[in-house]
Amino acid sequence: MRDVIVLGVGMTKFGELWNRSLRDIYVEAALSAIENAGVDHIDSMYVGAMSSGLFVQQEHLGAVLADYLGVNPIPATRVESACASGGAAFRQAYLEVASGASDIVLASGVEKMTDGADVTEVLATAADQEYEAFHGITFPGLYALIANAHMHQFKTTREQLAQVAVKNHHNGAKNPNAQFRSEVTLEQVMNSTMVADPLRLLDCSPVSDGAAAVIVASTDVARKLKKQIIRVKASAQASDTIALHNRRELTTLNAVSKAAEQAYRMAGMKPSDVDFAEVHDCFTIAEIVVSEDLGFFQKGCGGKAVAEGKTAIEGGVIPINTSGGLKSKGHPVGATGIAQIIELYEQLTGRAGERQVKDASVGLAQNMGGSGASCVIHILEGL
Amino acid sequence: MRDVIVLGVGMTKFGELWNRSLRDIYVEAALSAIENAGVDHIDSMYVGAMSSGLFVQQEHLGAVLADYLGVNPIPATRVESACASGGAAFRQAYLEVASGASDIVLASGVEKMTDGADVTEVLATAADQEYEAFHGITFPGLYALIANAHMHQFKTTREQLAQVAVKNHHNGAKNPNAQFRSEVTLEQVMNSTMVADPLRLLDCSPVSDGAAAVIVASTDVARKLKKQIIRVKASAQASDTIALHNRRELTTLNAVSKAAEQAYRMAGMKPSDVDFAEVHDCFTIAEIVVSEDLGFFQKGCGGKAVAEGKTAIEGGVIPINTSGGLKSKGHPVGATGIAQIIELYEQLTGRAGERQVKDASVGLAQNMGGSGASCVIHILEGL
Repeated sequence: MRDVIVLGVGMTKFGELWNRSLRDIYVEAALSAIENAGVDHIDSMYVGAMSSGLFVQQEHLGAVLADYLGVNPIPATRVESACASGGAAFRQAYLEVASGASDIVLASGVEKMTDGADVTEVLATAADQEYEAFHGITFPGLYALIANAHMHQFKTTREQLAQVAVKNHHNGAKNPNAQFRSEVTLEQVMNSTMVADPLRLLDCSPVSDGAAAVIVASTDVARKLKKQIIRVKASAQASDTIALHNRRELTTLNAVSKAAEQAYRMAGMKPSDVDFAEVHDCFTIAEIVVSEDLGFFQKGCGGKAVAEGKTAIEGGVIPINTSGGLKSKGHPVGATGIAQIIELYEQLTGRAGERQVKDASVGLAQNMGGSGASCVIHILEGL
Repeated sequence: MRDVIVLGVGMTKFGELWNRSLRDIYVEAALSAIENAGVDHIDSMYVGAMSSGLFVQQEHLGAVLADYLGVNPIPATRVESACASGGAAFRQAYLEVASGASDIVLASGVEKMTDGADVTEVLATAADQEYEAFHGITFPGLYALIANAHMHQFKTTREQLAQVAVKNHHNGAKNPNAQFRSEVTLEQVMNSTMVADPLRLLDCSPVSDGAAAVIVASTDVARKLKKQIIRVKASAQASDTIALHNRRELTTLNAVSKAAEQAYRMAGMKPSDVDFAEVHDCFTIAEIVVSEDLGFFQKGCGGKAVAEGKTAIEGGVIPINTSGGLKSKGHPVGATGIAQIIELYEQLTGRAGERQVKDASVGLAQNMGGSGASCVIHILEGL
């Protein structure tokens, strides 16, 4: 397999973009990535989108977006893995360049969630429709089950959950593309409206519109363009039972630990070699569980780690969600996995401004679908 | 890139499978392919499905089906390109094996269309939602525009359209997995209910449920298992404008001719090297146009060729849709592209029974989405 390089990135601001269409925001992100990469063409493109059918009644999204981007007749394929659709699209682009079939590929993601659909109902199609959603449980409820189990088993506290939101809003306030550029206090999180006990409104990532795109290419292309080499050191993916009730335990996400294991093996690295990470904090509890399953902290210690500042940019051991994460940056589901790669790229090229992690040379992005039934992990290294 | 071999195949009967769920039919097809291939594991899987969200309110289909197939924690990814979703899933599996990332990959497709959704409305999400579907045009209407243009420009006749249906039902009657195992006469087609002038009911492929799966692998795996070598000689994909009205002409499908050009180049072949083909006959006119754009006949001569029997199994020059095609075998959209590969495999391994093409050693499968905004072509060779 050939080495694969991230050559350039582009994204829209995330938020409630009521006056713009899916096509419109997609084209902005994709053109921005193409321009940033400095390429004069792309060989092929992948689009991650969870449910353009249910959100905006448009399937066949690869073809639609290739058309509006003006890149016909190149191959254009949509990839779906619920909220991990962006990460999965990046992985397919990676495989296409690694195989030698193409030299320059656009990996992208988009979701338009605020156009009138019942968002909670649409998102619930990422759960087990026959055994979960049918009975009325949606994602806040599923993650609340995980949170309760984690609090019971490891004495994780309500305050520790809230610390995740406080930290991510603190980081997101410095991200010009974030949906919520506002700090929140521990008290605000703890007193926000109850959604699904113990998860409150400020424990939940928002409903967002947005698009994100990156260009991946072979080393030859990167060298010709004299670009800094940001190499994809590992691409790993794993699956788990779709329904939460079929798992041996609620407090470990098996797809995350399996994909992490593969990713570290492929990169020849261990968790302590990672300088910073973007992880899938769709709910505050998710960041805690994932930070453990990635091996950054012992199982059960993720809550304590956040509260002690170990995941903060300033003074942290392993800064997590420097971009603001899904919580503050926003979570247009199909775009999220690509936006994580963008934050890695910005940090590794030293362009993260006020959010910059000092001496960042290895970053990890973890993107997952549903309650963790799919997980995609990438490790990038800046040389 | 490594050589990629088709190792085994499996599918359900296509039809109105009211008493079976999407998961149920999928697992039947996938297990059957795994058994047929003789492998004891798979490294990864791809599922092609057009709109499981709108048809059965279930997204995240890769994870759902990996779970029900019992193959967690392997990577499982859904690929969507409207009615070309199956072909696109096969292509991703091909790229993964070709890259060296995996040795044994399941490429599959499924659609459950008879569970209550408004099928014509769901299928219309493969057209341009903002400029086509919004104004009320659906696929029979779009293909009727193509048919009228072809009849006007090339004197293609109503009888020639009907001959496509007659031939495909003749072939499908010999296919145990076909939805309609019944012959139809020219008169029956010509007198069937008008759907969108000039297309009548028997010019249209049906609404179907079904699943199909194939195992692709590296040459090493095929040799170890002492399997006949059915090699993927070419994998090509192209796109076109999503809306019909943006094309320079209605009678040529640019994505088909572009993908064909690439496929022949990759295989080092010309159209006359192909012994038989499965093409995307969602409507009778589609088979005629595609048979021209694949280079089997001069532009404008596809209708005459069918009427003269040039695409028949018995006495034909290039038998087309020996399986019965979408018209008679059925068209569960996500499964169609995979079922085409299965027919190629059956023919190349001499297992096509009464439908067997004599001395078949090279087969081509052409799968497309919408009114041809995406097209995937594969060429397989039996050694």
